[in-house]
Amino acid sequence: STEQAFVTLATNDSYARGAMVLGKSLRNHKTSKKLVVLVGPHVSDQSRAVLHKIFDEVRLVDVLDSGDTAHLAMMKRPDLGVTFTKLHCWTLTHYSKCVFMDADTLVVSNIDELFDREELSAAPDPGWPDCFNSGVFVFRPSNETYGKLLQYCTEHGSFDGGDQGVLNGFFSDWATADINKHLPFIYNMSSIAIYTYLPAFKQYGANAKVVHFLGQMKPWSYTYNLTQRTLRGDVQASSQPGFLLQWWALYSAEVLPMLVREYGDQPFISG
Amino acid sequence: STEQAFVTLATNDSYARGAMVLGKSLRNHKTSKKLVVLVGPHVSDQSRAVLHKIFDEVRLVDVLDSGDTAHLAMMKRPDLGVTFTKLHCWTLTHYSKCVFMDADTLVVSNIDELFDREELSAAPDPGWPDCFNSGVFVFRPSNETYGKLLQYCTEHGSFDGGDQGVLNGFFSDWATADINKHLPFIYNMSSIAIYTYLPAFKQYGANAKVVHFLGQMKPWSYTYNLTQRTLRGDVQASSQPGFLLQWWALYSAEVLPMLVREYGDQPFISG
Ligand SMILES: O=c1ccn([C@@H]2O[C@H](COP(=O)(O)OP(=O)(O)O)[C@@H](O)[C@H]2O)c(=O)[nH]1
Ligand SMILES: O=c1ccn([C@@H]2O[C@H](COP(=O)(O)OP(=O)(O)O)[C@@H](O)[C@H]2O)c(=O)[nH]1
Ligand SMILES: [Mn+2]
Ligand SMILES: [Mn+2]
Repeated sequence: STEQAFVTLATNDSYARGAMVLGKSLRNHKTSKKLVVLVGPHVSDQSRAVLHKIFDEVRLVDVLDSGDTAHLAMMKRPDLGVTFTKLHCWTLTHYSKCVFMDADTLVVSNIDELFDREELSAAPDPGWPDCFNSGVFVFRPSNETYGKLLQYCTEHGSFDGGDQGVLNGFFSDWATADINKHLPFIYNMSSIAIYTYLPAFKQYGANAKVVHFLGQMKPWSYTYNLTQRTLRGDVQASSQPGFLLQWWALYSAEVLPMLVREYGDQPFISG
Repeated sequence: STEQAFVTLATNDSYARGAMVLGKSLRNHKTSKKLVVLVGPHVSDQSRAVLHKIFDEVRLVDVLDSGDTAHLAMMKRPDLGVTFTKLHCWTLTHYSKCVFMDADTLVVSNIDELFDREELSAAPDPGWPDCFNSGVFVFRPSNETYGKLLQYCTEHGSFDGGDQGVLNGFFSDWATADINKHLPFIYNMSSIAIYTYLPAFKQYGANAKVVHFLGQMKPWSYTYNLTQRTLRGDVQASSQPGFLLQWWALYSAEVLPMLVREYGDQPFISG
């Protein structure tokens, strides 16, 4: 196949809302690629119905879990073992090349140029910058690679208990081999940058193409006032209220009406 | 010339203590390179005398200052304008190649292999990883480059008010041009990595070759108990008490006796 696709993942209805907003943001910026969402069995029928309206393909996958509570506790993220499920994306062999994007990312300009890159291209992680962040990456679906990845998981586990540890272990020459596999940070810009190096954010942040709401607080964890278009609660702590408001504007204008149609008139405005 | 040198900088007696420890750590790991320290006019005669015992060359430079209080305030580091003084290192044209190291770095293994790299090689900054951290970098002294750097400062200033902003502006293709100019993060490992991505630190931190105590709290800001070999105060916040103790062990065993000899018996054990 020569088809290409953006791929995301949601194992529950909260992350599904993230996937909906991501899908809409890709459409609004006129991507020419297919959109695929991998869903776990716990995603409700209503959420799936909405996902079907936004994505070209909604694919059911079984949930993989690292079961590695020790490493995940180190990051205070016991929930991340389930991110092993991400590895299923390599089985999408009816596409020649894909870009995986976390469900907590938001596209703010067309990024189809990412398909010029080769596997495995990704942006540096701001925590340990010789690791790539696994929230946005270019890959080639392949059952062979999928098999090797699962084998790697079995033999070596994940140094952080999540998919990022596995993928960095497996694609271990990312930091040293090929500069073209280093996506610019603006393709996976996380809020961490704002509080660790504010002047750089002020200098380069306006060029952001993808915003990544990584960490424990997700856009859908906040409560939004639909009439005032403001967020309630400790938004300062998020450090990127502007992007958060952008996420909520898109969610309330284009996703919420679809959810209301499926579910009835529950408000869906708080996390 | 074909001589090569490690270069550091101290504009006051506090940073001079850092430079002494750095110099000792390079000697202890048997570097074959020359050691140079640039000193500002405020460094005392006694400190200079000690520096002369550790370094091959102690070179007086005038203090440059960015005078850019606005950007520095953003980082809560009003003191960093003076880091423009670092640019003087390009005038060391009696060396063919040099490695600059901040006075708040500590070498924990031989790193002479850095001289195989070309200008400008540096490790990614964990805050905005498409910027390099200017605490450790490989460069070629050149009066021409020095002139261009000063001109760049005049025309563009520094986006962060310090030397890192200037150098990243000037060597602006670092993130995209040549993977060989990306030093592994273990050549400039900062404590930020510990609290932002602890599992990666546990996985890779043991390979550290250079520890960088960046940020407001420097090793010499703490108070050390010489008999118990422990640090007083809020050491947790530093997140790398192990490396801090290593710094203090070296300082107290090898630098303090030299300072005492020059100054008399003042204790020099608190910041
Ligand atoms: O319970 C979960 C946790 C994660 N994910 C998926 O795995 C990705 C990675 O997790 P997360 O974004 O929470 O990790 P972070 O970026 O905060 O490290 C998410 O974006 C989702 O696509 C999911 O579907 N369900
Ligand atoms: O008052 C100062 C501030 C800085 N420096 C030199 O400039 C370097 C960079 O400053 P610093 O290490 O404080 O910055 P950080 O690494 O914390 O960003 C120091 O290591 C010193 O070599 C100096 O000599 N005097
Ligand atoms: Mn994420
Ligand atoms: Mn420093």
